[in-house]
Amino acid sequence: MKLHNYFRSSASFRVRIALELKGLPYEYVAVHLPKGEHKQEQYAAVSASGLVPTLETDDGALLGQSMAIIEYLDEQHPQPALLPGDAIGRAQVRALAQLVACEIHPLNNLRVLKYLVRDLKVEEEAKNAWYRHWVRVGLEAYERELQRLPQGNFSFGNAPTLADCCLVPQIFNGRRFDCDFTGLPRTMMAFEACMQLAAFQKAQPSNCPDNEA
Amino acid sequence: MKLHNYFRSSASFRVRIALELKGLPYEYVAVHLPKGEHKQEQYAAVSASGLVPTLETDDGALLGQSMAIIEYLDEQHPQPALLPGDAIGRAQVRALAQLVACEIHPLNNLRVLKYLVRDLKVEEEAKNAWYRHWVRVGLEAYERELQRLPQGNFSFGNAPTLADCCLVPQIFNGRRFDCDFTGLPRTMMAFEACMQLAAFQKAQPSNCPDNEA
Repeated sequence: MKLHNYFRSSASFRVRIALELKGLPYEYVAVHLPKGEHKQEQYAAVSASGLVPTLETDDGALLGQSMAIIEYLDEQHPQPALLPGDAIGRAQVRALAQLVACEIHPLNNLRVLKYLVRDLKVEEEAKNAWYRHWVRVGLEAYERELQRLPQGNFSFGNAPTLADCCLVPQIFNGRRFDCDFTGLPRTMMAFEACMQLAAFQKAQPSNCPDNEA
Repeated sequence: MKLHNYFRSSASFRVRIALELKGLPYEYVAVHLPKGEHKQEQYAAVSASGLVPTLETDDGALLGQSMAIIEYLDEQHPQPALLPGDAIGRAQVRALAQLVACEIHPLNNLRVLKYLVRDLKVEEEAKNAWYRHWVRVGLEAYERELQRLPQGNFSFGNAPTLADCCLVPQIFNGRRFDCDFTGLPRTMMAFEACMQLAAFQKAQPSNCPDNEA
């Protein structure tokens, strides 16, 4: 398998975590977003929508959208499971993942921040406030959802799931913008539990071959 | 089952479509977003994140996030299936749904538009341009994705799927803001095919009990 992705992309990071958790080897193909490589012809052949990540299977199928890719990996390689065995649990884990992937992350994408600055002439400080606002509001909602679930070390229970694959990159991103993570005990406990695991460590941006930091 | 939702909410509309496609009766519980009912104590007991829709099952489980709810309904009531039978097909349909739910809709939410106006002092015209920009860019990507899939009447094949449950409300929303839908033949063909079906007609905002239009 090949993963077309970018070290700093949250959506890419989610899939790298899933691949590492399942112990699946893959070829890392870097797509440099700030250089616009995702908009070039070469990548258009890989991703019609021009987004990272894309998973290229050994059969040549090209799969986009991080949560869809992770569900595919979980179906093809069921162990360790990234979704619970019961329907209500699966719905709860998917909802947590979507709370990050549909409510927080889309507002803080590189292309959105660029639009704020270039087209809406938003100042740097207001752009950063926008960023922090949506992370904070979103993570407060995430925390409230966790508070209603049975206690566990991770977002759901005592093993990492699709929800943690989405949460951890969001925390990384938030840290880059000095977001406030106080008062989110269950959320940050899940984050810390994840970061104890080699899979999350290996998948993080600083360990990627295209990391420039 | 009860569906806590709002007639004009795209995410609510998605779930209403799925319920109608599967012929599942449900109690419609209106949550008036412009009046802020989703932020009040009564609704906090239903949804920790304060978002619509929430599906309340007959066993009292409270499920959030529209795509997670639809997957749950599809698991519990498999016919008619809203996801293909093979793993690659499922990944493709989920990716199309997420292209709408993660790339377009989050940027055009009521709360985001409010932030643009109240906090960033964006003028009405620029706000509408923002709206149309993300709908257009997102649907162009959707169209390119469809062009790579085998021809069918719907987004994927010849029956409605999770992808169409997301696409149709996005087109409805785009129409309210006079978005440009030219040059999107496969996308609009899928939309038209959906609107031929009684399920999509019944689920649409104008047929909801809380419709004020």
